[in-house]
Amino acid sequence: MTARAATALETYLFEKKRLIDEALERCLPDERTYPPVIFQACRHSLFAGGKRLRPILCLAAAEATEGNAEASSLLPAACALELIHTYSLIHDDLPAMDNDDYRRGRPTSHRVFGEDIAILAGDALLTEAFHLMARRELMRDVPPERLLEAIRTVAEAAGYLGMVGGQVADIKAEGTAGDLETLLYIHTRKTASLIRASLRVGALLRGAGPDGLSALSTYGDHIGLAFQIADDILNVEGDSALLGKKTGSDACRGKLTYPGLLGLEAARLRASELVELALAAIENLDDRADPLRMIARYIKERKT
Amino acid sequence: MTARAATALETYLFEKKRLIDEALERCLPDERTYPPVIFQACRHSLFAGGKRLRPILCLAAAEATEGNAEASSLLPAACALELIHTYSLIHDDLPAMDNDDYRRGRPTSHRVFGEDIAILAGDALLTEAFHLMARRELMRDVPPERLLEAIRTVAEAAGYLGMVGGQVADIKAEGTAGDLETLLYIHTRKTASLIRASLRVGALLRGAGPDGLSALSTYGDHIGLAFQIADDILNVEGDSALLGKKTGSDACRGKLTYPGLLGLEAARLRASELVELALAAIENLDDRADPLRMIARYIKERKT
Repeated sequence: MTARAATALETYLFEKKRLIDEALERCLPDERTYPPVIFQACRHSLFAGGKRLRPILCLAAAEATEGNAEASSLLPAACALELIHTYSLIHDDLPAMDNDDYRRGRPTSHRVFGEDIAILAGDALLTEAFHLMARRELMRDVPPERLLEAIRTVAEAAGYLGMVGGQVADIKAEGTAGDLETLLYIHTRKTASLIRASLRVGALLRGAGPDGLSALSTYGDHIGLAFQIADDILNVEGDSALLGKKTGSDACRGKLTYPGLLGLEAARLRASELVELALAAIENLDDRADPLRMIARYIKERKT
Repeated sequence: MTARAATALETYLFEKKRLIDEALERCLPDERTYPPVIFQACRHSLFAGGKRLRPILCLAAAEATEGNAEASSLLPAACALELIHTYSLIHDDLPAMDNDDYRRGRPTSHRVFGEDIAILAGDALLTEAFHLMARRELMRDVPPERLLEAIRTVAEAAGYLGMVGGQVADIKAEGTAGDLETLLYIHTRKTASLIRASLRVGALLRGAGPDGLSALSTYGDHIGLAFQIADDILNVEGDSALLGKKTGSDACRGKLTYPGLLGLEAARLRASELVELALAAIENLDDRADPLRMIARYIKERKT
């Protein structure tokens, strides 16, 4: 990536992240609401320095579909994607699952609030995501049938045929020899499905036709997988200070990963191929899709 | 309740339960779907002999609103309420929460499948509830804006200002002296909010006006509280063989309950008063609301 492209991307991500952070701040009750501990727990995990990749992809897909429309009118739906992502991190980190003490440099929810509150904070964020998407008055320019289709898309991506199914397969694969087919199943469900859904939601809410929707979905599938492979690579050789969590934990735990199964070089190559496939999927879209092109290239170069 | 009324109610509940059980059977993937353990876990808890009170109330409210319409066209929304109820039981039973080994005479989810799968089964059922409510093609006679309003109603009832908030307050109140205000907060959120939402969803989807909606909501508030008080009473003096779980567990755990706070007699009196208030709330509805009247009277007489 050239220096100019890197700056353009940084500006784009910074602007969008600011919009999303402000919207998230508005949508969550403050920490004095009764019973305070649940709002403290939700906020602890939601405002922990996440990149907001999923909501940004949602807004970028909306812009690629209908460039002139004000992306901010879709912020509630975009925020819902971040709530679902955050719920999944809280539950994945629990002692009964991955048993992680730190994430993004901060103690995980159950370490601060106890397992009971961490489970409930995840439940609350998941529920609030659907609540937000059903709040028509916040997204007045979107017809109700499109909101329903968006809810359905997100629920499918998050449910037992999506993220939950992927997490189950991941747990069951730990410590087994594993194979590429199982690994692909896990990555597709655990990571790519919500990323794909984020793009679809942005496109759907802006009334994308079948071609646009299909192109953006395929882009999402590919960058979703590339993102997870990059994550696995960072877990092997990343800087734990930058990442805010221990590296090497996947290997200790016998997690099924691309680097573990194929080696680092082959994993890197696969991530690059996937980014190329993602770019090819949206090659017929005009320059309103440029942010999506920059994001795809960034994914294989990211350090955190 | 007279013998004739008891028979009429039994027939009504039996018929509706059959409809709901069949619909639940259709909406869940079978146990051979990959990864099978998550579908086994969802089915283990969902088909464990529940009374289906919430979906029945939803259908009964729909009938009270528009008697001639086919209640079965609302079955997906009614089933969603049962999925949410079941998710809440699975999570409440977890070792980090109430640590219950049995429910309805069967080992709880985490005893059979482990804590990780039990957490994920709850997550999956909660997510599937919203998925079901967004499936327009299953409820063709319902305008999309009403489905959105129903989703919003259920999410509010289930979220941090509803069931999750109630469970948090319940956990935090354990072993404390407690007071009636806290107890009312807990019961209203933990139990009454989803019961109220069940009635509202049935009424909303059938296009109830503000008066009908308000009457059915008030009915729901009152029977919701009466139901929880009856539950607390059964926990003190119920037949554990009939209930399929240990009795006396609330007292052992220092749970805040009506009988614990006020004594059994005062608790019984309060449940009766609430049933009367529920009946008064719907006194202006015609005889299409008779099943709701029977259900209200049944609640204080139930043995399981």
